[in-house]
Parts: sequence; C-alpha cells; structure tokens
Amino acid sequence: MDLKNRDLITIDDLTNGEIEALFTLTDEMSDKMPAQYGLCHGKVMATIFFEPSTRTRLSFESAMLRLGGGVISVSDPKSTSFSKGESIADMARIVSAYADIIVLRHPWEGAAKLMADYATVPVINAGDGGHQHPTQTLCDLYTLKKERGDIKGMTIALWGDLKYGRTTHSLIFALAKFGATILFCPSPGLEVPENILHKLVTEYGGELEKFGKNHKVNQTGAFTVDAAYITPEQPHQLAMMPGIDLEVAMKAGVDALYVTRPQRERFTNEEKAADLQFPIVDKKLMSGKELQRALVMHPLPRVDELAYDMDADPRSMYFKQAARGVPVRMALIALTLGAKEVAAPVETVVPKVDYPIYKREYGVKCSNPRCVTWQETEKNYLKPEFKIVSLHPLTFRCIYCEHGTEPKFVASTEWHQGLTESKRYNRANSHLSKKIKSENLIAFDSAEEAEKHGYKAGHYVKSQVVEVSPNE
Amino acid sequence: MDLKNRDLITIDDLTNGEIEALFTLTDEMSDKMPAQYGLCHGKVMATIFFEPSTRTRLSFESAMLRLGGGVISVSDPKSTSFSKGESIADMARIVSAYADIIVLRHPWEGAAKLMADYATVPVINAGDGGHQHPTQTLCDLYTLKKERGDIKGMTIALWGDLKYGRTTHSLIFALAKFGATILFCPSPGLEVPENILHKLVTEYGGELEKFGKNHKVNQTGAFTVDAAYITPEQPHQLAMMPGIDLEVAMKAGVDALYVTRPQRERFTNEEKAADLQFPIVDKKLMSGKELQRALVMHPLPRVDELAYDMDADPRSMYFKQAARGVPVRMALIALTLGAKEVAAPVETVVPKVDYPIYKREYGVKCSNPRCVTWQETEKNYLKPEFKIVSLHPLTFRCIYCEHGTEPKFVASTEWHQGLTESKRYNRANSHLSKKIKSENLIAFDSAEEAEKHGYKAGHYVKSQVVEVSPNE
Amino acid sequence: MDLKNRDLITIDDLTNGEIEALFTLTDEMSDKMPAQYGLCHGKVMATIFFEPSTRTRLSFESAMLRLGGGVISVSDPKSTSFSKGESIADMARIVSAYADIIVLRHPWEGAAKLMADYATVPVINAGDGGHQHPTQTLCDLYTLKKERGDIKGMTIALWGDLKYGRTTHSLIFALAKFGATILFCPSPGLEVPENILHKLVTEYGGELEKFGKNHKVNQTGAFTVDAAYITPEQPHQLAMMPGIDLEVAMKAGVDALYVTRPQRERFTNEEKAADLQFPIVDKKLMSGKELQRALVMHPLPRVDELAYDMDADPRSMYFKQAARGVPVRMALIALTLGAKEVAAPVETVVPKVDYPIYKREYGVKCSNPRCVTWQETEKNYLKPEFKIVSLHPLTFRCIYCEHGTEPKFVASTEWHQGLTESKRYNRANSHLSKKIKSENLIAFDSAEEAEKHGYKAGHYVKSQVVEVSPNE
Repeated sequence: MDLKNRDLITIDDLTNGEIEALFTLTDEMSDKMPAQYGLCHGKVMATIFFEPSTRTRLSFESAMLRLGGGVISVSDPKSTSFSKGESIADMARIVSAYADIIVLRHPWEGAAKLMADYATVPVINAGDGGHQHPTQTLCDLYTLKKERGDIKGMTIALWGDLKYGRTTHSLIFALAKFGATILFCPSPGLEVPENILHKLVTEYGGELEKFGKNHKVNQTGAFTVDAAYITPEQPHQLAMMPGIDLEVAMKAGVDALYVTRPQRERFTNEEKAADLQFPIVDKKLMSGKELQRALVMHPLPRVDELAYDMDADPRSMYFKQAARGVPVRMALIALTLGAKEVAAPVETVVPKVDYPIYKREYGVKCSNPRCVTWQETEKNYLKPEFKIVSLHPLTFRCIYCEHGTEPKFVASTEWHQGLTESKRYNRANSHLSKKIKSENLIAFDSAEEAEKHGYKAGHYVKSQVVEVSPNE
Repeated sequence: MDLKNRDLITIDDLTNGEIEALFTLTDEMSDKMPAQYGLCHGKVMATIFFEPSTRTRLSFESAMLRLGGGVISVSDPKSTSFSKGESIADMARIVSAYADIIVLRHPWEGAAKLMADYATVPVINAGDGGHQHPTQTLCDLYTLKKERGDIKGMTIALWGDLKYGRTTHSLIFALAKFGATILFCPSPGLEVPENILHKLVTEYGGELEKFGKNHKVNQTGAFTVDAAYITPEQPHQLAMMPGIDLEVAMKAGVDALYVTRPQRERFTNEEKAADLQFPIVDKKLMSGKELQRALVMHPLPRVDELAYDMDADPRSMYFKQAARGVPVRMALIALTLGAKEVAAPVETVVPKVDYPIYKREYGVKCSNPRCVTWQETEKNYLKPEFKIVSLHPLTFRCIYCEHGTEPKFVASTEWHQGLTESKRYNRANSHLSKKIKSENLIAFDSAEEAEKHGYKAGHYVKSQVVEVSPNE
Repeated sequence: MDLKNRDLITIDDLTNGEIEALFTLTDEMSDKMPAQYGLCHGKVMATIFFEPSTRTRLSFESAMLRLGGGVISVSDPKSTSFSKGESIADMARIVSAYADIIVLRHPWEGAAKLMADYATVPVINAGDGGHQHPTQTLCDLYTLKKERGDIKGMTIALWGDLKYGRTTHSLIFALAKFGATILFCPSPGLEVPENILHKLVTEYGGELEKFGKNHKVNQTGAFTVDAAYITPEQPHQLAMMPGIDLEVAMKAGVDALYVTRPQRERFTNEEKAADLQFPIVDKKLMSGKELQRALVMHPLPRVDELAYDMDADPRSMYFKQAARGVPVRMALIALTLGAKEVAAPVETVVPKVDYPIYKREYGVKCSNPRCVTWQETEKNYLKPEFKIVSLHPLTFRCIYCEHGTEPKFVASTEWHQGLTESKRYNRANSHLSKKIKSENLIAFDSAEEAEKHGYKAGHYVKSQVVEVSPNE
C-alpha cells in the first residue's frame, strides 16, 4: 500500500484494503500519540479554508503538530488575496511551493479535484460544497469499526439533511463498499440526490427500494424510512428476496443512526422559505425497539436536531467521532507524506466501472450550478468533462462534482463527414441516439445550442416522437 | 504546589503561595528563555478567541512556542462553525480532543467557567466579558513585585473604567489577597460594580469607605478618589482608626496608578449617549506629590486616557507589563501541563468563605444580562446556581459571572409538605424569610413567577410591610 | 556582511554585495532545504498583516517553519485590538516583546519605517501601501539572476500599473543599482510617480527619456514604451549617445517583461470611474520580435492582465518567482536572526547621496495623503521629516513614504534674530530662497500657515514675481 503523494478527493480514491491499513496505523497513532512527535519535522501543511470551519481545520492542524510538522493557514477567505478573483489553479501552483500537503475546504463542488489537478503536492479534500468530505467519512468508519468490529452486514440509518450533507454522501459509498445495508431517513424535502443513488446502484450493485414519503417503521411512529439499499455482500436471505422487506431488513435492529444538521447555508431560497421539518433525535426516539442497540453518530456541529439528553447515553458516539479525527488524520498525513508505511491487507475488491469519457470544447454543461465548472475564474483552467454512465437514458456524470446530467439532444461526428447537409441533431431519447458510439457522441443541452454550432434539427426533433423509454 | 491539569478561571483559583511559586518559575523562564525550548514538545494549545484581541492571544501563543509546543487557533469567530449556534459545552468537549490546554476569550461573563465544566483539559480564562482576566492580573502582580519587592502594605490607585475593565476586577481581589490598600479613582459613571465591593469586604475582610463623587485629594485637583479599601493586613495605625482617612492612607504616597481604557464596546446605549469624561493620565497629573513614586501601569491597548508624554518616564511600566506576559504565561502553561514543578512557599492563608449553594430548576435568575446563564445556546448545559452570600438582605452571587442578585420573594420547601394551601411566598425582606433554612429556600424574581409555580401570596406580600432593613 | 538585527524597509537598505551574499545563501537554502530545519529553533516570527495577503504571508511563515521557528500571526485586522485606534508605535513595542522578528504589511505608506523606529527587534516591510515591497524585489532579482546570470546590462520592461504597484517601485531602484536598462510600459493613466523617477535620476545617475503617451515600438503595435532609463553602468554605445534611441536600446531584445496587476483597491474615485485600459500580456504580444527571449514575470496574484495561455510557455517565470519566495525569505530570516552568516563579495558601490534634513515642529507636510505622517493615531509618535533633495526647485522627500513635496513658501531662521519686523516669508521659487542655508530653512505649504506662525509676506510674495525657473 502506498498513499505517498496521493490526493484524497472522494472516498473512492481509497480501496477497502487501503482504508483498513490506514485504520491499523490510526490505532498506533492513538495508542502511542506522543511517540509520533517528530515524524513530520520540517514538513509544512497548508490549510486553506474558504468556508467557516473549526473542527476539521483544528483537527488537521492538531494532527500535523502532533507529528511535529508545521502549519500555514488561510482561515478567513476575506483576508486573503485569493478573494481578489484569483483562480484555484494559480492558488494550487503557488501553495504547492509553500507546503508539502494541502488541505482544502471550498464551497464549490469539484474544487478539490481542480486544486489537485494543478497542485504538485498532495491535496486532501476537507469538504467541497455539498459534494464530499472523505476524511469525515474515515472518522465515521473508524468509529463503526472500533465500536462494532466489522462493517459488513451492518444496518446503518442516515438521518436528517441527506441532500446537502456532504458527509453522508461520502459515507454512503463507503458503507456500500464495505457491505452495509443503508436506510435513508431524510427530513422531508432533503432526500439524497438522485445522482448519488444512481451511482450507488450502478457501481456498487445491490438493490435499492424507495418507499415513498413518510414510510413508518413498525411501532415507533417517529422513525420513518424513505428508501433502503441492500448490498450484494448481504449474507442472509435478504439478498435473495424480491424487493426489500423493511421488517426483515431491520430484524436485527439498526446498528447506527447517523444524524446530520440541516445545512441551512446551502438551502435554495425556496427551501429557506418552505417550512421544512427537522425531526429531532432524542431519548424518546432512541427508545424504539429497532434503535435499542444503535450507535448515535453525528459529524457535528449540531444545533437542535440532536438533543442534549443523549449526551450521557452510552450509545452516543459523536464526541468520540470528533476525537478520533486527530489520530485518523495523523495516520493519513503520515502516509501521504511518506513518513510512515503500512502493509495493506488483501483487498476486498470493488470493481471500478470504466465509463467512456465525454469531453468536448462545446456542448453540454454540468447541470449543477454549484459545480466548479461554472465559475468564471476557473473557465480557462478546466474543460467540462463527463463519464457517460448510461446511454439509455443518456446520462453523464461530471468528473468534478459527480452530479448527473441528461443531455436533451445529440449528434454524431460520423454523420457529417464533410457533408454539411448531414449535420443533424436529434433527441437524446430517440432510437437514432442508440446508434452513436461514445467516441463520436456530441451532446447538447438545448436545440439553440446545437443550431448555434451549425447543426440542423433531424427527424426526431421535428416529429417530437419519443421512441426510447427510460426503462428500456 | 501542583497546578497540573487545573483550570484558571478567576484569580481566586490560585492561593498566594501558588502565585509566588509561579513567579519564581517566571523568573527562571525570563532569565533563561532559550533553555525552555522543548519543555512542551508535542503538546498543543488551543487559543479560542471570540472577541478581538492581539496582545493576550499573541503572548499566549509566543509563550507556547518558546516552550516548544504547538498552537491551534480560532481568532475570528465569524470564520468558525462555533458561530453556527453551537454550544460552549460542545465546543469544550471537541477542543479537548484536539488540544492539551485551552485558552478562551469570550464576551459572555462566566463563559470560561462553563467551558471548564465540560472540557477534559485545563481551561485558562483569557477574559470573559467584563468579569475577569486572571493572567493579566498575574502580569500586573509580577510587575509590582519585580519593581517594588513586596505587595503587602502598598497603596494602589485604580483609574478609569472600573465598571467594565475586567482586568481591574481580577486585580482588586489579588491586591486584597496580598494585603494592599486600594484607592478607587473611576471615571465618573464607571465606578466599580457593587458585587465586587461586596465580595471584597465580605471575603477579604478589611474596611471600605466611599467618599462620594469627585473627592479631591489634597493639592492636586485632578486626582480624585471615590472610595478606598484598607486590608486587615495593613500593618500600621490605619487599620485601627475609625473610618479611613485618605490623607493618612496616602501619607507615603501612591505606589502604583493602574490606568484602564474606557471599554466603549461594552457600554450600554445610555452610557454611549452620555457625555462621559475620561480624565487623562499625563506628566501633569503625575507631577502631583502623592504620585511622585507611583508606577504607571496599564493593561493596554491605550487610546487617549494615558498620554504618550509618559512613555519615556521611568515610572511607566506598561510596556514592561506587556513584555512580562510571555514569561508569566510560559510559567503558567508549563505548570498546568505538568512540564515543570516548583515548590510552593508557605501559604499566606486567605480563608475561603464556604457559602451555602442555591440551585433549583426554576425561580431566580442571574441579574446580569451578559451572564452566560442567559444565553439560548447554553440553556441545556447549565442550571443557574448561586452562592447565598447574605441572608439579610438576601443576596445571591452567580457562580458563573459572580454578579450579585437580590431575589424579591421567597418560599420554603418546608411550608407546604403536601398541603397545597400552605404553599405561600413572602417578601424576601420580611421577617418570615429569616426563618427559612438555606437548604429549604426557594427564591423568585417576581410575584408572577412564584404564582406560576403554584405559590400564593403570603401575609408579607399583601401587607406590603417591610420589616427587615438592609442594615439589620 | 552582517544583516543581523537589521530592518529591511526599502530595497536601498541592502547594498549590491549584501544582496549577492543573500542569494548565495538562498542557493544553499534551496538546494538543501530539509537540512535547514532547526536553524531557528525557539525563535518566533510575528506576521502582522493589515491588508489582505496570502502569498507573502504564507511564504514568510513557510520559510520560518522550514527553519524550525515558530510563527504568531495577525492576518485579519478586524479581529485584533490593533483596530481599536492603537498606534503603530505601541504595537511595535508590544510585539517586540513577543517575537524575535516582525513582518509587517500595512496600507499606510511609511508604516514599516515607523514600526521599525519603535520596535526593538528587526522589522521586515512586507508591503506598505503603494510604497515598497522589498522582499518581493529580492525574489524578482533572484529569478533574473538564476535565469539570466547577470543583471548588469539587461533590458527590463515594466508593464501595467506602475503607479500603485509597489513591487515595481522597489524593483526600479534595484535594477538601477545593478546596472539594468529599464523600459516603462504603463497602462495609460498609471505611469510611474514623479518622485520615483526623480530619485532614480538624481541618486542612481544615468539618463531618463520620456517618449510621451503610446510610443509604439517598431513592428509590434501592442508593445508601447512610455519612458526609458539607461544606467551609467551601460557598457556599450548607448551610454554615450545624446538622448535614448529605443531601437538601439532594444536591439538585443527585452530580457524580461515584468507585468503587474491593476491595483484597483488603491485607485482614487476618479480612476475607478475612468475607463482605464489594461493591455493584456498574452502569446500574441509575446510573439513580437523584441520579446522573443523575454522572461515573463509577475508578482501575482494576476487577474486578467496576464493571459493563462502563457502558463505553459517556457519564458513564463511567475510561478518560479513565487516558489523562490520561500528560500529567499529563509535566507533573509536566517541572516537577520543571526542563525547564519555569509561572506559578502566586494561591493559594487552605489554612492549614497547625503541630503540635508528638514525637521521642524510646524510648517510643510508630506504631500502624500496615504503617508503614515497624516494618520491621527500616529501624530504623537513621529514628526514630519524630509530630505532636501533639491533646492531649485525646492523639493523635499518624506523620509517615511519617500514622496516628493514642493513647499510653496520659505523663511529663514537667520532673518529675524529678535527682530519681529524681519520675520518675512517669500515664494520658494524666488531668488531670495537661494540664499537660505539648509539648516536655517523654514518651509510652508501655504501663505496662511506662514502668517499663522507670525511671518509676514515678503517682497517676493506681494510682487508675484517668479525669478527662478525650475530648470535653472
């Protein structure tokens, strides 16, 4: 296993084996913390935080200091020239000259990947908008492992703001990777984004079932499950049943309830105006039979969604989660800087799906307005690039923010070799689109854009016929 | 003497002997500063500052670096998630996991005590609103000691904003503890709060005399004394005289004039609107006979209240005071982290008064609106708690901010054992209140509140008779 | 060579030999960076930044950490008590007690000199308003030297905002000192201030020629030169020609094009309102024959004035310049703290001009409203002081901000020894002013001021005769 000089942008950047090796080193860091002082003498970490933070920044900095390294920091974006319209690419190149490792928090989704593309030192994503927060996920996984032994076969319920809570986004894939069953219990209106569920099913296999709003679980009225995911790793009968039976899934009870704060700072104006309800996790809820053994986890800070009456409860893990942030990050920093090495255990292989890539000078753009690809200062330093994760319906996934985008119109580079008359575009859901090879595909968000680039409406634009259904 | 793992919230947390031992170590830190590097290798200090500061934060951080330790810092509360409505209790538990010692500055009075209640590492109060700032007091005392030898028997005049200047509040008790005479010279309208004078007399003994506004001292018109305090330690005739004669008290002249800046940021709107005058300390004032030998001290920053024409004057100590902040804090940190030990000299015992405690779910609240007990985010993490410092008149002292509160109505838990009819409340200054034992006392701020909790007006509410005078 | 304990306020504070010795040490720092860890163990640097910055602050801090030292920092002036109206002088005395070296950035021109006047530890100017930024100049010079070998005889073009770009102000004198030819290519309206050109010619010798607006250089329309400066060091025929022939000066091409960002934050309201044009440096401009070999330099951050299409160009040096900020500053810090010594090579002596000094309690003030001498908080801690750099026309240079000031009226201390009637002031450009010795000179900005101080209008005020022309 060699994490030396590697970036950590999403939790997918680490294999299961690498995560387990990291946790072995975390144990060592935790057990003999004073002995680690000096491992990173002379090394410098830059913590560049463009969003308010305390926990994450302080725990990274504490970790580096415990290793004997130094820290340079930008914690108030207003007091930095980075606010003067400088690009992330320039910032990456500059800070690479000052530090041996960069920890970035940024409100734009995909910003950490862009930083890593230009930096010459490793970049750790400490949260990029609502996208991912992989080191928080490492703390979460480490806590589950320390408290329960093995993640495989566990049932984990995710609670609260599953739309903007980036920590849950990283966690979902990590749990799937390790073979856990996931119950989605969002605050109404803050459900998990579709692109995440899509990626979950297509890349991790397993089965997802949506129960619709307010699906209540047996006796306890307050505990509602909106959807459930069963991994193919699931050892018992569940995996063989048609559809998911919640009662069966929860027979052994929930192993952990992962609570998140409503991320009000990311709400749209509509969401701010709407009277969204945030059910509270408290002793009463936790007295339900299916939650009897459930660890209560929270990435913190909490506001009201997690009652203080849980603080003394032995199931409450949230302060331990936070405390483990230091040894987990010590291990990560030491490995990334090459100050430590550990032997990786045999991999639990999760096959990576190799999707074809879509990258053109013009055409379709990422559908996520918070994506880094939309930012004026960055336009010269990146080109929109997508994985073609599905052809029917045609679905792209932005390589920066990982949001899904469904282009409406397509054309082919083969159609019009020299023949202007043959430059035609058609609806993406027409049967003609099926015939286009990935490498020849040209995709557009709108008819106007296709025509601007010299394409004329083909038969399947004019006739408005939709021939391919999404489920085909 | 063992300061290891102890909090420092108010100057009362240290005995005279401990302070003297700390100063012995301060001498060593000061004389051989480079030799201290390494004492705190691998240790981490968190400086959490919720109010603008430079001097205090930088000198703590410099002290820690000189000892070879590391620092993590929150200096701009707006750039931290602590501003998102997180409680001090949560913050305490989290930061305890990241650092070995916490230095807190906070605008709420009592915030440092609350932090210490929940932190698992030692907490140093670096200023909590207008309450205390004990490390500044240590720098002040150390300077007095270095320049004058012994604090006992000294006459110290406190000048300026004695209402909001928290540095003087810590200093008053320290001076009393060491046996100094204190002259109060407030800017008119910014007199020392009553709760401080009350604590001074009841706990430190000695005698306090108020002279009323604008009491001028002999020749020098500009030097006015509003009140004076003579400790029981006073060795000469003063202590035996009836009343305090200022001329006698100042016969040997003033040893130090402690100047403070008007703390405009804490002024009420009325105080801001009022045309408050801030007499200036300058060469002219200092030419007065009684100030001839007086050291000029100031916790800094100064604005206009201390004239620059004093900068070159040999009596001026304010830059030395600031400079001594580093070795004083080095000594404190090293002792608190257990990196150093010193033998404590024989104690000059100041007997602690053990007051009965008042703590109930409902009833009287602290009268100080800036107290941490009033803060919405903290309500779950603390219960109002008071020392009953006087029964007649009934006076409580908040254990967080130390402000005095005089409840208006009282009841007893003994009065109504099972008999609803006997649940009666009476005026706190009625003779019935005298009969209630501390452990049975229930106190209310208002009749409405008493009735809300099921109490009915007793005889001494209806008749409006006031039977016990405050001086009884 | 001994830089120990010396301030670095302007680039003039270092001789050529000292700069070269510093660069020798920079090479060592750069080649064996890890070996430097420990050189400054136990030392503390204070970075006090009153303007947004990232690059400069982070590179100073990284340099100190690489040497094993510690850093205390104020990066957000709003979160410091320095914002409460405290003087720079007080700040200097305080921070001197906390740190072994102070790095200051401040918006007021001359602030670093004032800080150095009161600090007891060395002060490094990290940018004082539009005045100077000497460590950036060291990075620039080091880059020129590493890439081209010898600065002597080079032709350097300065591009963009030459009015407010303090980095170019420091650089101009450095280039002159090392014997380079300078081409001035300002954005129209942002020409180099006259006081800088005046100092250049009077103190460094050589020849300056202004070509007027938009002087185009041969074929390339976009490359315009506004003025040129040839040093007396120039070895070839140029130095002997009457006037400067641009074609000859640029025969060998430009060695470096130094680009600066429009410093919009310093623009006057008129400049903000004006539609100022900022010609862009891009591949097209750089394809001009005379720029074929030119290094492209920029102090960063850039916005639009330097096109991203240059990033991959081998001539582009700006990221290297920034990267070299760390070893250059390591060398500077190590020398200033006495942690390293280097032998200085034989000096290339640039004779310092010893101007007479003008310093009076009243009279003329610096003409630069951004000068530190105008600031209310500083008035007690400094007296306006000027070098008399020219008698005809009478020209003063502020010792703080180095701006030029031309007093309108003069008097002499000799004229009125006891004779009130002889206390007369006259126009500064009258022939009487020629007769006043520097040590007797009294200068006024206005007739009102002269009369306020008891002077009466002399003959050459009433008659309005101007007898001495500026060119005499």
